Amino acid sequence: MSRPGRSEAPESSLENLVSRTLGEEAPESLVDLLPVLTSDLAEIDQRIQQVLRSTYPRLTDAATYALSAGGKRVRPLLMAATARALGLDSARSIYSLAAAFQLIHTATLVHDDVIDHAEMRRGRPSMPRAFGLPSAIVTGDYLFVRAFELAAEYPRSIILRCGEACAALVEGEVLQDSSRFDLTTGREHYFRVIERKTAAIVAAALGSVAEIAEASAPVQEACEHYGRALGVAFQIRDDLLDVYGDPDLLGKPLYTDLREGNPTLVSLETYGGLTGAEQDEFERLFVQRRKQPGDLWRLRSLSDRTTAAQTVALAAESWGEQAVHALAALPNGPYRTLLEWLARGAAARRF
Amino acid sequence: MSRPGRSEAPESSLENLVSRTLGEEAPESLVDLLPVLTSDLAEIDQRIQQVLRSTYPRLTDAATYALSAGGKRVRPLLMAATARALGLDSARSIYSLAAAFQLIHTATLVHDDVIDHAEMRRGRPSMPRAFGLPSAIVTGDYLFVRAFELAAEYPRSIILRCGEACAALVEGEVLQDSSRFDLTTGREHYFRVIERKTAAIVAAALGSVAEIAEASAPVQEACEHYGRALGVAFQIRDDLLDVYGDPDLLGKPLYTDLREGNPTLVSLETYGGLTGAEQDEFERLFVQRRKQPGDLWRLRSLSDRTTAAQTVALAAESWGEQAVHALAALPNGPYRTLLEWLARGAAARRF
Repeated sequence: MSRPGRSEAPESSLENLVSRTLGEEAPESLVDLLPVLTSDLAEIDQRIQQVLRSTYPRLTDAATYALSAGGKRVRPLLMAATARALGLDSARSIYSLAAAFQLIHTATLVHDDVIDHAEMRRGRPSMPRAFGLPSAIVTGDYLFVRAFELAAEYPRSIILRCGEACAALVEGEVLQDSSRFDLTTGREHYFRVIERKTAAIVAAALGSVAEIAEASAPVQEACEHYGRALGVAFQIRDDLLDVYGDPDLLGKPLYTDLREGNPTLVSLETYGGLTGAEQDEFERLFVQRRKQPGDLWRLRSLSDRTTAAQTVALAAESWGEQAVHALAALPNGPYRTLLEWLARGAAARRF
Repeated sequence: MSRPGRSEAPESSLENLVSRTLGEEAPESLVDLLPVLTSDLAEIDQRIQQVLRSTYPRLTDAATYALSAGGKRVRPLLMAATARALGLDSARSIYSLAAAFQLIHTATLVHDDVIDHAEMRRGRPSMPRAFGLPSAIVTGDYLFVRAFELAAEYPRSIILRCGEACAALVEGEVLQDSSRFDLTTGREHYFRVIERKTAAIVAAALGSVAEIAEASAPVQEACEHYGRALGVAFQIRDDLLDVYGDPDLLGKPLYTDLREGNPTLVSLETYGGLTGAEQDEFERLFVQRRKQPGDLWRLRSLSDRTTAAQTVALAAESWGEQAVHALAALPNGPYRTLLEWLARGAAARRF
C-alpha cells in the first residue's frame, strides 16, 4: 500500500512538513535549524518504520496508514528541539523515545476515531472507516505494544513516565466520556480533561528528554511545565478550530465535539454567554444525541452571538505564553527560541 | 462498585477458584499444592489491585469489572506452577509478571468483546454492554498500559518477550478478521490464527518464567513449547465449546463464532464432512452477515450430521498430550504433575 501524504522523496517532504509546522513567517534564525531538525525527524521516522514491520503486511499497512495520517508530528519535533536546546550534541539518544511517543499518540487517535465515529482524519477516511472497526481497534493496540517495546530501551524511570502519561491520557478519555451531553460540568472539569487527555503526554515526553539529557531537576520541571502548558494551548486551539476552523485546512469536517456532545471551552463559554430562551435552545440542541446538520449550524450561530470564540482564542494564547515563560529556565539559544515559537504557534495555528 | 463473582473472603474464594480449575477429581497429591498456589494467586491479585488504583474511581471500577470477569485465571496459575516446578523457592519474583500477563489477557478480552459485539461474558453483561463502547476501548488501553508498567520491573529481554507476544496476539486478531465469513481458508490458516491469538502469549509467559528462574536453554524452550501447545489445546476446546458447550457453565450464549463467521476447526471440519446440497447450505448460512437464531440452530444441526465434534475434541486432546510431552525436559515432581494435569484439563474442560 502506498502511503498517501508522503512524496517519493521522504526527506524533502519532511522538510516541507517542518517548514509547514513552523509556518511561512518563521524568522531566518529558525529556518537555519531546518536541516538538523529534518534529519532528526527522518531518523525518528526510520525507527517507527523499523518497529512496525510485521510478518503480516495487512497489519503493517494499517499501522502505516494510521501513522501517515498522524499529521504535523509536533511531538517528535518538540522532543528533538528540546534535546538540542538542552545541549545534547546529537539527538540520537531520544530517537526511539520520540518514536514511542508518536506511536502512542497515533494509537490514541485511532481509538478516538472509533469512539467518536469519525469519518475523516487529515483529509482521508479515518482508520475505522478505511479498515473497519475490528482492524482499527487492534491496530491501535499494536501501536501501543510497539511503543512500549521502543520505550523498553530506556531506564525504568523513563518507561514509568511514559506509562503514567498513558494512564493519565486514558483517565482523560474516561473523564471526557463522563461529561458528554452535559453543559453543567464547568471549566474546571474541562481543564482537568485536557490536561490529562492531551497535555500529560507532552509533559512526559519533554520531561523524559530532559532526564535523558541529564538536566538539573529545575530544568526537568521546566520542560514538563512547558510541555503541559503547550499541550493545553494546543487542545484549546483544537477545540476552537472544531467550530471556527477551515475544514479544508483541517482535513476533516467541523462540529465533531458539538455532535458528540463534548463540552469544550467553546460550548461552555457560549452557554455562559447566552441568556433566556437562547441559552435554553443551546442546551436543548447540545444535549440531543442525534443531531441534524441544521442543529449543528444553529449551535454555531448561537455561539456567534457571544464572545466565546474570542475568549477561547485568548485562553489558548495565554497558555502558549505560560509555556514560553517556563522556558526561562533553559539555556538561551536558537533552539529555545524555536520552542517559544512552537508554543505560540500551537496556540494560534489554523490547522 | 462491588466486584461480582468474588466473595468477601478473597482467600477462600481463591481456593474455590483453584480447586474449580483443578476440577473435583484432581488427585490428592495435587490438592496438597492448593495452599501454596492459593497464596501465589492472592499475591498476584494484590499486584493487580495495586496497579489498577487510579485517581478516577470510574476507571478503577471499569478495570476491576473487566478483571473480575477474567474467569479461571489459568495464566497466573500456570506461571506460578511453572516457577515452582523449576525449583524457585518463592514465586515472588514472577508475581508482577503474572499480573502483567493477566492484565494483557483481560485487555484483549475487553477489546474482543467490542469487536465481537459480545453481550455476555462469564455470566454477566460484557464490558462494552455494562460500561459502553468508549469506556470499553479505553479500559482495554488502560489495562495494556498498566501491564507494561508492571513488565518494566523486569530486564529488557522479558519486556521484549512480552511485547512480541502482544504483537503476535494482535496479528492473530488481524489474521482472524481477514478470514471472516470464509470457509475456504482451511485448517492451516486456523492454526496460524490460534497460535498467534492464544498460544503465543502463554508461550511467552512460561518462557519468561523459565528465564527468570535461570533455567537452561532447553528447559526454557520446553516451557515455551508446553505453553504454546497448551494454548492451542485451550483454544481448540474453546471453539468446540462455542458450539457444543453448556451455556450455563460457560456463562455466555453459544454460536458466537458461527454468528461472527469465524471459521473455527468445528466449522471447517463440518464443511469438509458434508457433501452436495448440505455442504452448499452450510456455506450459504455461514457466510450470511446477519443470521437469525434459526440459521444458527441449522448450522449446528448440520454439524451434528458429521464427525466434526469428535474430530475437534480429539485434536484438542492431541495438543494437550503434546504439551505434556514437552514437560519431560522439566524436573520430575508434584508441580510437573500439576502442569501435566492442567494441560489435559485445558484440552478436555467443559467451561
